[in-house]
Amino acid sequence: MRNPQLNKNGELQHLLTIDGLPREIITAVLDTAAPFTEVAEREVKKLPLLRGKSVFNLFFESSTRTRTTFEIAAKRLSADVINLNISTSSTSKGETLLDTVDNLSAMQADMFVVRHASSGAPFLISQHLDAMRQEHIHVINAGDGRHAHPTQGLLDMYTIRHYKKDFTKLTVAIVGDVLHSRVARSQINALTTLGVPEVRVIGPKTLLPADVEKLGVRVFHDMRAGLKDVDVVMMLRLQNERMQGALLPSSEEFFKYYGLTPDKLERARPDAIVMHPGPMNRGVEIDSAVADGPHAVILPQVTFGIAVRMAVMAMLAGN
Amino acid sequence: MRNPQLNKNGELQHLLTIDGLPREIITAVLDTAAPFTEVAEREVKKLPLLRGKSVFNLFFESSTRTRTTFEIAAKRLSADVINLNISTSSTSKGETLLDTVDNLSAMQADMFVVRHASSGAPFLISQHLDAMRQEHIHVINAGDGRHAHPTQGLLDMYTIRHYKKDFTKLTVAIVGDVLHSRVARSQINALTTLGVPEVRVIGPKTLLPADVEKLGVRVFHDMRAGLKDVDVVMMLRLQNERMQGALLPSSEEFFKYYGLTPDKLERARPDAIVMHPGPMNRGVEIDSAVADGPHAVILPQVTFGIAVRMAVMAMLAGN
Amino acid sequence: MRNPQLNKNGELQHLLTIDGLPREIITAVLDTAAPFTEVAEREVKKLPLLRGKSVFNLFFESSTRTRTTFEIAAKRLSADVINLNISTSSTSKGETLLDTVDNLSAMQADMFVVRHASSGAPFLISQHLDAMRQEHIHVINAGDGRHAHPTQGLLDMYTIRHYKKDFTKLTVAIVGDVLHSRVARSQINALTTLGVPEVRVIGPKTLLPADVEKLGVRVFHDMRAGLKDVDVVMMLRLQNERMQGALLPSSEEFFKYYGLTPDKLERARPDAIVMHPGPMNRGVEIDSAVADGPHAVILPQVTFGIAVRMAVMAMLAGN
Repeated sequence: MRNPQLNKNGELQHLLTIDGLPREIITAVLDTAAPFTEVAEREVKKLPLLRGKSVFNLFFESSTRTRTTFEIAAKRLSADVINLNISTSSTSKGETLLDTVDNLSAMQADMFVVRHASSGAPFLISQHLDAMRQEHIHVINAGDGRHAHPTQGLLDMYTIRHYKKDFTKLTVAIVGDVLHSRVARSQINALTTLGVPEVRVIGPKTLLPADVEKLGVRVFHDMRAGLKDVDVVMMLRLQNERMQGALLPSSEEFFKYYGLTPDKLERARPDAIVMHPGPMNRGVEIDSAVADGPHAVILPQVTFGIAVRMAVMAMLAGN
Repeated sequence: MRNPQLNKNGELQHLLTIDGLPREIITAVLDTAAPFTEVAEREVKKLPLLRGKSVFNLFFESSTRTRTTFEIAAKRLSADVINLNISTSSTSKGETLLDTVDNLSAMQADMFVVRHASSGAPFLISQHLDAMRQEHIHVINAGDGRHAHPTQGLLDMYTIRHYKKDFTKLTVAIVGDVLHSRVARSQINALTTLGVPEVRVIGPKTLLPADVEKLGVRVFHDMRAGLKDVDVVMMLRLQNERMQGALLPSSEEFFKYYGLTPDKLERARPDAIVMHPGPMNRGVEIDSAVADGPHAVILPQVTFGIAVRMAVMAMLAGN
Repeated sequence: MRNPQLNKNGELQHLLTIDGLPREIITAVLDTAAPFTEVAEREVKKLPLLRGKSVFNLFFESSTRTRTTFEIAAKRLSADVINLNISTSSTSKGETLLDTVDNLSAMQADMFVVRHASSGAPFLISQHLDAMRQEHIHVINAGDGRHAHPTQGLLDMYTIRHYKKDFTKLTVAIVGDVLHSRVARSQINALTTLGVPEVRVIGPKTLLPADVEKLGVRVFHDMRAGLKDVDVVMMLRLQNERMQGALLPSSEEFFKYYGLTPDKLERARPDAIVMHPGPMNRGVEIDSAVADGPHAVILPQVTFGIAVRMAVMAMLAGN
């Protein structure tokens, strides 16, 4: 059975999840992204690679932040970008998801950037497009439920490679709400694929998946122990809505045990980098002294994120 | 009295309704649209015809689907497109419709694509612009109340011509809620203008206008009888809100009598085409077996719709 | 202490308020705007000055009208424009204003057009950017609370200069709700800076600031007396929400005493011009006979407003 993300030549056809993505593809994305970081430094931040292409930002769930990153990436590649906030339109008129997709495909779409509250929606769309023989249309998953957010995972890998060069000598800790995160699983897979010898997850039992060890990670419930000698600290965002349930006593309590403070960070290596996918809850999962401190590479992550999204779009359009 | 849609040279000045549009103008739109369908097949789907022009999508009523079709058409012609959702802005601050229009005109608008819940609003705007001597600004009606939706009517004509070539030998049936449809009346007029010898309407008495025969159509309440030997079946969308009133017993009942199923469609000619303006209510006015079957040309309608909108914009900008 | 709006070469770095802006800068904006009014008359209303630049419309408060003017100005300069309605996104996820700004800066923004309900927000953002050494990013205040709306003030000056040429011989009256207006104070400062010898404010005591005389204006509570022999009448918009409080008895009463009617306007000079920032409340602060009459230059204000915004953007991008 063929990898649903690759075309028959083994090239990237859709970007749905990092899971199962061959190491060569991940590396190709990172390599393609590198020169795009320089485009952003130029006077004229514009390349003609997607000129005359129609990119639809298909957001079934609102996310201004994510939509903005894809919109700016597509515009810098000279694409025509159409933003569609679907929650309040066609589907409320009784049209099915796939009818909406067929409709936009018939408008000669070239790319769908899909955000959806339901896990698997981008996969469903990509399968449908392939079944309808619309192989020239590419799908990028911009976050589906708890499942995946692959461009976030890729930009994280880009950031690590940028600062640490060699994946094969690193110890990386992922901290926080692994259970509800749509990036944590992808990060673990990507890090393993890229050869990171030790991946740790740190968090309370209530926020770690029951079988997380099966992914090949070391589990820590004590943050100080978990951060010992790590090269990379990847913080996860704590969803405020979790706080209201039984999973967490309070944000203060969480911060006390799992918030990244300067003194906890001292356990890591002196040149450790601190990452966060944003938006940050300062004083909940991360202390401002760390967020704004010398170890943080949180804003470079955003910059690399634009380049990585441009790379994915350029690769898809070229395949 | 001059046709309010034509300038003093008899060229298209505004597109407000198909009613009263001369046959030569309708044909000119269809002829102009033809090469635009090829643009959409190209690598670079971009023409410079509206470069530096400002197209305002003036939506006093939200319709993501319709707005998208005009936005993509304008962008493929290289226009600058500004989307305005007016329901929640100026008019709520007490500004009148015409003050809003004057304001945008003063920003050197070139084209207004107007969607409004009130019938006649685009006509009012066009008359006002002409009175203010803003002859360089063109209005396209993108749907006004129950009145008209002329680009939908034109793309329907394009679709019929594409598949059937010669209008003068056709039997066409329009099926469903003719009473509340803003396209049905336009379709009847356009078909008649283009020389279709037999136009039929099919629907329950409660959903047909009292005087519909005066438009020169044959009326059928029995769908099987009405579909006998037709070349073209034009389904109308059933507004869900009609279902709650006294007009219709239930969507199941409607589907039983007026839903287009494969067995009802067998009464039509073997090469009949099935059209629908979308979004479809599957299982209400149309069966999925038909919607996805070999007679359906519903997705080509969407594709032709982009080309027709490009044609209208290009013609207006050129006049 | 350096003027926070100027860079170390004394050039415009941010446009936050007209207050404190040197006369030469104001004049430079007006001079730069002049040729841009001609761009709008061309077939192709497009200049490449901001090509490849990313302009973010950062609206923490919704204002379709203002957003549109900046969007069209930026697009006519060939910028990539991203509209962000922030009220419903990141900040509701608990991210701070400055984290949002840092995030967008990391996407290589070139310009932020900021609208915010809180006075001082654009200043705060500009100070933060300067502190973060993001000197290549420019901020334009598009209205902050009751504080300022400098492009409105500048377009007013442009309009007066266009019609009256020489500021040093004029009598100008500002009429209405000076107290709650975010433009009145800027207008007074700009007029004084540009050498207008007599500026008057006209309004009921409840709608004038207590210390308004300190700004160097003459105060009138009687409109007929205040309009005597003026060259320019600058009407202010009456916020409907003021009507509900104790400040005003009713809109009818306000119109009777302070609404600009033809007979009140007769007191002004025969060649007086009437201005209004829009949107107008016809029959509240201005009579339709005046709004649509020969003295009104309200629509030219809008046209000049686009040119002035283009000028500000072009100057900022060039500095």
